[in-house]
Amino acid sequence: MKKTTTKVGIVGTGFVGSSIAYAMINQGITNELFLIDVNNEKAKGEAHDLSDGIGWGQTNVTVFAGDYNDCKDADIMVITAGINQKPGQSRLDLVDTNAKIMTDITNSIMASGFDGILVIASNPVDVLTYVAWKASGLPHSRVIGTGTTLDTTRLKSAVAAKLAVDPRCVHGYIIGEHGDSETAVWSHTTIGGKNIREWDGITEEVLETMYVNVRDAAYDIIDKKQATYYGIGMSTTRIVKAVLNNEQCVLPISAYQQGEYGVDDVFTGTPAIVGQEGVREIIALPISDSEHKQFLNSVDQLKTTIRSIK
Amino acid sequence: MKKTTTKVGIVGTGFVGSSIAYAMINQGITNELFLIDVNNEKAKGEAHDLSDGIGWGQTNVTVFAGDYNDCKDADIMVITAGINQKPGQSRLDLVDTNAKIMTDITNSIMASGFDGILVIASNPVDVLTYVAWKASGLPHSRVIGTGTTLDTTRLKSAVAAKLAVDPRCVHGYIIGEHGDSETAVWSHTTIGGKNIREWDGITEEVLETMYVNVRDAAYDIIDKKQATYYGIGMSTTRIVKAVLNNEQCVLPISAYQQGEYGVDDVFTGTPAIVGQEGVREIIALPISDSEHKQFLNSVDQLKTTIRSIK
Amino acid sequence: MKKTTTKVGIVGTGFVGSSIAYAMINQGITNELFLIDVNNEKAKGEAHDLSDGIGWGQTNVTVFAGDYNDCKDADIMVITAGINQKPGQSRLDLVDTNAKIMTDITNSIMASGFDGILVIASNPVDVLTYVAWKASGLPHSRVIGTGTTLDTTRLKSAVAAKLAVDPRCVHGYIIGEHGDSETAVWSHTTIGGKNIREWDGITEEVLETMYVNVRDAAYDIIDKKQATYYGIGMSTTRIVKAVLNNEQCVLPISAYQQGEYGVDDVFTGTPAIVGQEGVREIIALPISDSEHKQFLNSVDQLKTTIRSIK
Amino acid sequence: MKKTTTKVGIVGTGFVGSSIAYAMINQGITNELFLIDVNNEKAKGEAHDLSDGIGWGQTNVTVFAGDYNDCKDADIMVITAGINQKPGQSRLDLVDTNAKIMTDITNSIMASGFDGILVIASNPVDVLTYVAWKASGLPHSRVIGTGTTLDTTRLKSAVAAKLAVDPRCVHGYIIGEHGDSETAVWSHTTIGGKNIREWDGITEEVLETMYVNVRDAAYDIIDKKQATYYGIGMSTTRIVKAVLNNEQCVLPISAYQQGEYGVDDVFTGTPAIVGQEGVREIIALPISDSEHKQFLNSVDQLKTTIRSIK
Repeated sequence: MKKTTTKVGIVGTGFVGSSIAYAMINQGITNELFLIDVNNEKAKGEAHDLSDGIGWGQTNVTVFAGDYNDCKDADIMVITAGINQKPGQSRLDLVDTNAKIMTDITNSIMASGFDGILVIASNPVDVLTYVAWKASGLPHSRVIGTGTTLDTTRLKSAVAAKLAVDPRCVHGYIIGEHGDSETAVWSHTTIGGKNIREWDGITEEVLETMYVNVRDAAYDIIDKKQATYYGIGMSTTRIVKAVLNNEQCVLPISAYQQGEYGVDDVFTGTPAIVGQEGVREIIALPISDSEHKQFLNSVDQLKTTIRSIK
Repeated sequence: MKKTTTKVGIVGTGFVGSSIAYAMINQGITNELFLIDVNNEKAKGEAHDLSDGIGWGQTNVTVFAGDYNDCKDADIMVITAGINQKPGQSRLDLVDTNAKIMTDITNSIMASGFDGILVIASNPVDVLTYVAWKASGLPHSRVIGTGTTLDTTRLKSAVAAKLAVDPRCVHGYIIGEHGDSETAVWSHTTIGGKNIREWDGITEEVLETMYVNVRDAAYDIIDKKQATYYGIGMSTTRIVKAVLNNEQCVLPISAYQQGEYGVDDVFTGTPAIVGQEGVREIIALPISDSEHKQFLNSVDQLKTTIRSIK
Repeated sequence: MKKTTTKVGIVGTGFVGSSIAYAMINQGITNELFLIDVNNEKAKGEAHDLSDGIGWGQTNVTVFAGDYNDCKDADIMVITAGINQKPGQSRLDLVDTNAKIMTDITNSIMASGFDGILVIASNPVDVLTYVAWKASGLPHSRVIGTGTTLDTTRLKSAVAAKLAVDPRCVHGYIIGEHGDSETAVWSHTTIGGKNIREWDGITEEVLETMYVNVRDAAYDIIDKKQATYYGIGMSTTRIVKAVLNNEQCVLPISAYQQGEYGVDDVFTGTPAIVGQEGVREIIALPISDSEHKQFLNSVDQLKTTIRSIK
Repeated sequence: MKKTTTKVGIVGTGFVGSSIAYAMINQGITNELFLIDVNNEKAKGEAHDLSDGIGWGQTNVTVFAGDYNDCKDADIMVITAGINQKPGQSRLDLVDTNAKIMTDITNSIMASGFDGILVIASNPVDVLTYVAWKASGLPHSRVIGTGTTLDTTRLKSAVAAKLAVDPRCVHGYIIGEHGDSETAVWSHTTIGGKNIREWDGITEEVLETMYVNVRDAAYDIIDKKQATYYGIGMSTTRIVKAVLNNEQCVLPISAYQQGEYGVDDVFTGTPAIVGQEGVREIIALPISDSEHKQFLNSVDQLKTTIRSIK
């Protein structure tokens, strides 16, 4: 008999890791969920608090604090560990410390005999996804960074608010770095099949304002509440669900580039088809010249950062 | 045309209020959700972070930071504000400060013309539900404390773990104070229709250990992660859902007692039928003498506390 | 206190009406659901069978066989009544009989004091939506035909099968008549932001084959199982959900045209923004000339049919 | 890499089989769903109609018409095939013909190398579950009849209607034959922990009327709509979900008896714990003497029928 249940582990039980776990429980998308943290007491406390609600939930999820042995038969390991972005700090500032943490965690996961999909949510995410891939020895298709999934849902919300439509009906992507150099692909952003530039009230200025607000959303939220975790919680949960259900849906995750956008040997946010095997295929959008230029610049920064890691 | 959408407000955007909001969004149980906090910037930050995930969610929920004017046409106001329980502190210690806060908030809500259901999650919850009721001038059926819903789901989880069954199939209740004097109604706790005392491996010692662990769960979680909020987040969401959908389901909320268990003029946790109108009816369980004695003791403490409020 | 629950009625308990009801119950999208049929015993039998599963469902839905008095406070009335399409028969053949039935039903609904949204699923749907609108005296925004929602999801499935992607990630529309003259808007059909014509393996021949299969799907299904009802069941449920939750999402429903595509005074399938008030706005896609020509031809046929009704 | 998706097959695409499939799609509980029918064109037609709605659904389910080779890696095979109950006919009348059909189908499934769980919904279900078990060579824990799950949800609805409560809060069981000799276990039927006999307005007469209505529900529905399929559709879906998610929940399925209720070597409806391995354990309720007598009588009839099969 084949197992019909799914098992997901989360490394790091800070607010991001815990918010991913809580979203997964509330949505009932997996059957077993375990938490690993360097502070095992913290992981135990989170697991206790998280499992308390199951009795009133829609799905029986088994939640527990685990260790790296539990990764052996996990389907997905989500890594959220790392030092968090502080007010005023850019995502790239975090890189050296977090690269080391990422390598250690990945090594520990792989040592268990893990044979699933890695989902990386630690920042700077594009760089750390590269680091995790290198450390893991897995095919690049099985290492997924959360990339610009969060930026993209922020874009959806911004456009939705402007046009008074459902954000889930805004189809467009932020690509490139999850960070300051990201690119909004307005040339392929549509609502009901109609390009955003053809909607009443949309000017280049309006687009630029939306882009800036989306790009800088984390700074704004951190100013107001010290950290961001709910948006990334639902975005990461969306990716995990796509993999577990083998959806073959399109998500702007951080994927290994092989020339689709004129760059290679780098992970960065581009729309890709995601399923059980991880990333099946990057979708090469015929983006505009200015969008492409901005994207190449974004990738340059990522490559520079990757090379700089000590 | 009648409005078909629902609107819920949450007062207090600490971890409890925010976790309730996040659970509600992930479960998609309401259409509009607004947050009020004395720190309006905090409410804005939470609303921003919470709304970021909608684009990847199952329901289009409008989330925003509001003020008391927004309560006018809200269906439910959830109050979570108050000073939190600190390590070593009992829920009753918080009472004076939080009673004052509760009265102010309730007055502000009612001044808007609010005509819905109040759900109180601030601690000590049974006492503060009484305070909110008095301040509100609403029929007692329309003021609901979260009561022992959280304790009850903890009981479900504890029994489920012991017997290796789904916690949602454990039917039993914690009644009385949400706190140190609460009572486990083992005499009416069943799994598959069979009383828990008739299951293999269940002794009075096992029951006592489970009871103590459930009763003291908050202390354990607070030790490990400083606060508890996910369990109460899902429990409160369960109550809100029952009201919005007029479920007429049974939940152990803190309800106004009118002699069903031999006590009156107090709010405390007992199973009750909950729907659109709030609490329709308390279910009077023929509990055992020792359970009843423990319950009366719990109510005595609550009444003493209520009288002590300055 | 405002009611927080929703109430939907379905007129006609043939396979289409019953399948809509069953989908709504399984998805838990409304709180009260009633069925009206000229054969009241049939309505009672369906209501009994449908309500039998609630005890194992996720939502407490009250299901009953009703009469036109129950429409008074309904939020949505879905009309499915009419003579069904037989093997070899076109949807337009049914028109005279069904127009008379539609007028009678609409009159009976309106006589109750109904003040909600009408959703028409009887065929030929574009024509009968016009008939229902005229009979109802409602603003045209509050009368919605299921239009090409079913054809559009068939298109999504066809493209999804061809490209091995999730059908929910195929964004495109069938517009015009729900029937033989419908138009596939390939010029604005995208997957991951990329136009379908830019995907490997897609030729004009492939597109034509997909279009023909989608257009003729009903004939194929009727050949094999005598009737089609599950696809329309989920499509209609999707529309009802969009209205009840005020989603402001885009759906290719049959909407009253006011020049957006160069035609007016006709209901036909075009993408439109749908919410609590019904159809807020038709989205005018800059479709290609050949698509537009085909659309105009489709509308001509509808207008001829409308004029021909005795 | 372990597969994270689930695959369910349904044999028989009459109204029962198709309604199970439709419920599973609307609830999104599996990833792959295939239909087998002696009339392959019918299976294709149903698969087409069923898959048409996916584009508007919550989950990407792959639906197709299959053959017995597809059972090889299926997690669950649901068998609904057989001659249907006609007006005036009892479930036991069908037995000889359906036993032969069941044996053939089971043989075909097992010949594929199937290594999952069998769920039997064909009537007379208790007898045919025994037949399927014998033919399959599987451990009895992996053969589940739908048993009295449907009768039990009917009981929930009947009690719920009488007491105006949520049917999902009525905890009680019908046991024994899914048919005329079934037993309502009133002695262990509770709402909010309180036995039904302690609720206002409940007399032995009221209970008897509810029992008779539940027992005879199929006759009533068949009178009014010729067949019953929605209730069994949701009940079977509930069982499938419990297995796929390894819920360890309690369901009154038809399970192999080993003395728990004083009988053995027979499948019949009793509460049991259901998960990934099938039936883990029958829950032995201390039912009343009169309930037990009625149950033994029910089992006698089943055993007589089993022995009578030619």
